[in-house]
Amino acid sequence: MKRTVDVNSDMGESFGRWELGDDTSMLKVVSSANVACGFHAGDPERIRSTLSQAAANGVAVGAHVAYRDLAGFGRRYLDATPSELAADVLYQIGALKALAQSEGASVRYVKPHGALYNTIAYDERHGRAVIDAIGDVDPSLVLMGLAGAPILDWARTAGLRTVAEAFVDRGYQPDGQLVSRREPGAVFDDPLEVADRMVGLVTTGRLKAVDGSDVEIAADSLCVHSDSPGAVDMAQAVVNGLTQAGIAVRSFVG
Amino acid sequence: MKRTVDVNSDMGESFGRWELGDDTSMLKVVSSANVACGFHAGDPERIRSTLSQAAANGVAVGAHVAYRDLAGFGRRYLDATPSELAADVLYQIGALKALAQSEGASVRYVKPHGALYNTIAYDERHGRAVIDAIGDVDPSLVLMGLAGAPILDWARTAGLRTVAEAFVDRGYQPDGQLVSRREPGAVFDDPLEVADRMVGLVTTGRLKAVDGSDVEIAADSLCVHSDSPGAVDMAQAVVNGLTQAGIAVRSFVG
Amino acid sequence: MKRTVDVNSDMGESFGRWELGDDTSMLKVVSSANVACGFHAGDPERIRSTLSQAAANGVAVGAHVAYRDLAGFGRRYLDATPSELAADVLYQIGALKALAQSEGASVRYVKPHGALYNTIAYDERHGRAVIDAIGDVDPSLVLMGLAGAPILDWARTAGLRTVAEAFVDRGYQPDGQLVSRREPGAVFDDPLEVADRMVGLVTTGRLKAVDGSDVEIAADSLCVHSDSPGAVDMAQAVVNGLTQAGIAVRSFVG
Amino acid sequence: MKRTVDVNSDMGESFGRWELGDDTSMLKVVSSANVACGFHAGDPERIRSTLSQAAANGVAVGAHVAYRDLAGFGRRYLDATPSELAADVLYQIGALKALAQSEGASVRYVKPHGALYNTIAYDERHGRAVIDAIGDVDPSLVLMGLAGAPILDWARTAGLRTVAEAFVDRGYQPDGQLVSRREPGAVFDDPLEVADRMVGLVTTGRLKAVDGSDVEIAADSLCVHSDSPGAVDMAQAVVNGLTQAGIAVRSFVG
Repeated sequence: MKRTVDVNSDMGESFGRWELGDDTSMLKVVSSANVACGFHAGDPERIRSTLSQAAANGVAVGAHVAYRDLAGFGRRYLDATPSELAADVLYQIGALKALAQSEGASVRYVKPHGALYNTIAYDERHGRAVIDAIGDVDPSLVLMGLAGAPILDWARTAGLRTVAEAFVDRGYQPDGQLVSRREPGAVFDDPLEVADRMVGLVTTGRLKAVDGSDVEIAADSLCVHSDSPGAVDMAQAVVNGLTQAGIAVRSFVG
Repeated sequence: MKRTVDVNSDMGESFGRWELGDDTSMLKVVSSANVACGFHAGDPERIRSTLSQAAANGVAVGAHVAYRDLAGFGRRYLDATPSELAADVLYQIGALKALAQSEGASVRYVKPHGALYNTIAYDERHGRAVIDAIGDVDPSLVLMGLAGAPILDWARTAGLRTVAEAFVDRGYQPDGQLVSRREPGAVFDDPLEVADRMVGLVTTGRLKAVDGSDVEIAADSLCVHSDSPGAVDMAQAVVNGLTQAGIAVRSFVG
Repeated sequence: MKRTVDVNSDMGESFGRWELGDDTSMLKVVSSANVACGFHAGDPERIRSTLSQAAANGVAVGAHVAYRDLAGFGRRYLDATPSELAADVLYQIGALKALAQSEGASVRYVKPHGALYNTIAYDERHGRAVIDAIGDVDPSLVLMGLAGAPILDWARTAGLRTVAEAFVDRGYQPDGQLVSRREPGAVFDDPLEVADRMVGLVTTGRLKAVDGSDVEIAADSLCVHSDSPGAVDMAQAVVNGLTQAGIAVRSFVG
Repeated sequence: MKRTVDVNSDMGESFGRWELGDDTSMLKVVSSANVACGFHAGDPERIRSTLSQAAANGVAVGAHVAYRDLAGFGRRYLDATPSELAADVLYQIGALKALAQSEGASVRYVKPHGALYNTIAYDERHGRAVIDAIGDVDPSLVLMGLAGAPILDWARTAGLRTVAEAFVDRGYQPDGQLVSRREPGAVFDDPLEVADRMVGLVTTGRLKAVDGSDVEIAADSLCVHSDSPGAVDMAQAVVNGLTQAGIAVRSFVG
């Protein structure tokens, strides 16, 4: 039985005049912050402010790299060549590293965002571009990806350390895939129910799937959403539930 | 009398489908490459290719940071706040560092581009934002700026190493300022005349101003333009002239 | 004494994932909507949705054209050439016209946004670029500008119809200029006080300046802000106050 | 046997500092100009200049609409929603219309660019978004598309006029599809051979496919590329060949 788990959330997603998420509050709750790098969200000044607060709260920082698509918030598949994608990922990681360094923080992992996350979970062409980019700039960076997806195997084979994550408020299919947001059972919105599910997941490695069966999910990090109204409350409920169950919430990078 | 001088040129300014400059040829001539960082020009894949060639040719790499203005190629003043500008500069330097690292190159200096270059030469508000950004990410980075301009004093006072540059094909006023491009005598286009002027400048520290008087210019680096048709020939002529005069062309970062 | 006045507000300023303003509510209150055109804010899909609602509410539509600066929300001066600026303005007006047409709305006026608004109030170089653009695409478009500023004279001389506006919640200097946001008395936040001031302005043509003196302001449109939390309430209070005083709130384009 | 045919080419693809294509020369050769609208290429000032020259040369103007992807030059599939895509197309058409109007030109047709062109040839979801956008802004606009592809049927069924085009220098498969650029026979580069093929195509409606068989292609417009070094010469050779064969080159919009 596990005694620790990481809780991560997306941050730094404001852009210029536009605010998104309550990073200040969320950074007091989670152990890892996936910080936008400017391609789907995040202007440098706002990113820097989030990094400063992450450092002050002892929260681990990950590069939330994305397809180049501000208008689509990185949620639309973009058919970049592997060479374009690898360079785009290097660029984003480097930009975040410099901003982090200026605030006494450091980038410890990479979590692709949105459409890139979903694509590389199963697509080796874009997946290897991301893996190569990480290896080329800093092989000590951990790749965070979808629990059970082949991207984690490809990354480990390439010599990267990986962390598998589960989504706290999402329903799962019996095969370990997420229930589509278009289907019933896709999203849980009761914080206490979500907290209970996560305590169960961490302590047993299993979760109740949408059809009532048990599905095994090996997750070292739990993702809480950041951009819905009750996001911080949901995150706090999950952290409280885990703590009360004797599970320490802390980053996988120690 | 000086026995060495640096020759620098702008690079990495292609973007997506659009080509600009002949980096491959220019990197065989100059000792320092001011590489675009994506804000005025340069997509990550093209920047990376330029960095790879810079490393192969032993050319020193500088971050050619700019205002965020692709449509204006960074040539238009943008009234950013100092905090926005500092974060934008950090972002660009970091992005270039990661791309450089992936190609075995390293960023050794910062040369602001276009309107940012001209603005900070005399404007302390934006000048200090750039200085602060450099100090925050890597105080060993050298700041390249206009010979004789106050930005170099501000930077040195702040603890940065600086390099003063002259423009090989530009006319100078008696006070050391450039002749405006709207005035006669602003640009020299005969490679041999330009080479002669630069040999004179390096060996005597003086240059013939537009009014015929001598102007003192303390320059450790000579800038050759990269984006005109005869740019490589001009650069080669300057380097040949310097070499024949017994002056070694090499980077100031050794 | 006037019996009608226009009340305008900025709209369509959401962009992709980022929400800004409550257009749906505001369109039930105001008589004119300054709709973003994509250069400082507004993606085409969101703009279109706002235009559809403007049409449904019988609200007049203006093109809220801006400098090309998403990251700065059009609030930063950008030193474009007049030719660049004129083409940028034409582009934005045209884009909005097509989106409007697809929703049964039509663009009736142009109100420059942010830094462009402030710049052209007094700067003839950029001001004439905007005037020329309007004249080139549709001389029946009305130019909305700062009451008392020379831009309105330049536009009228060029044959455009103009509308002068006042800002409902801003303090004025005795000479009719706005009190800087850095000074005391710059902003009023009590809806009833603001409503009273506006009734006075419309009925007398005079407003109490920051020093207690009376300042004459000839305004045919009153601007209510849209992007603060109490924006709709403020707008409603102003409209209620005007209506109760017997002043009809309706667009200047009839 | 046909006695007239249209010859079209892409234009207005310069952006800021970056030049692409020789619009001035090409506009003296072709009968239709597919003008970029800013999403894959083209800044408003440069687009406007191209439109001015198109008007002076009596060349018909089409809106070369694209996915929002400057970095990829619109050549990368982007998984936009139909609603996003339709609004993006409306926006681009409108922007071009205003710029055209300011120069005495008018937009007469729409030719999607790059990845959007290839996608909608066969993909009904994105295809209908484009068709709807055209219908919503100006149903008199002609849709230009790939000869033989279903998009033309969908558009006609929706009430739009269509024009089928062939590519002058591309090889065709026996089923009428283009030979992939990765295969032998994909591209013809001899201007006289290309001209002969086009005369044959226009007079017989058939073209020699890559396997030596005859393939029927019903094309009312012939596309010449604009962004390769010999582009204007190729276009001139095709136009000369057609003219000498008694076929008039003129726009389908009369």
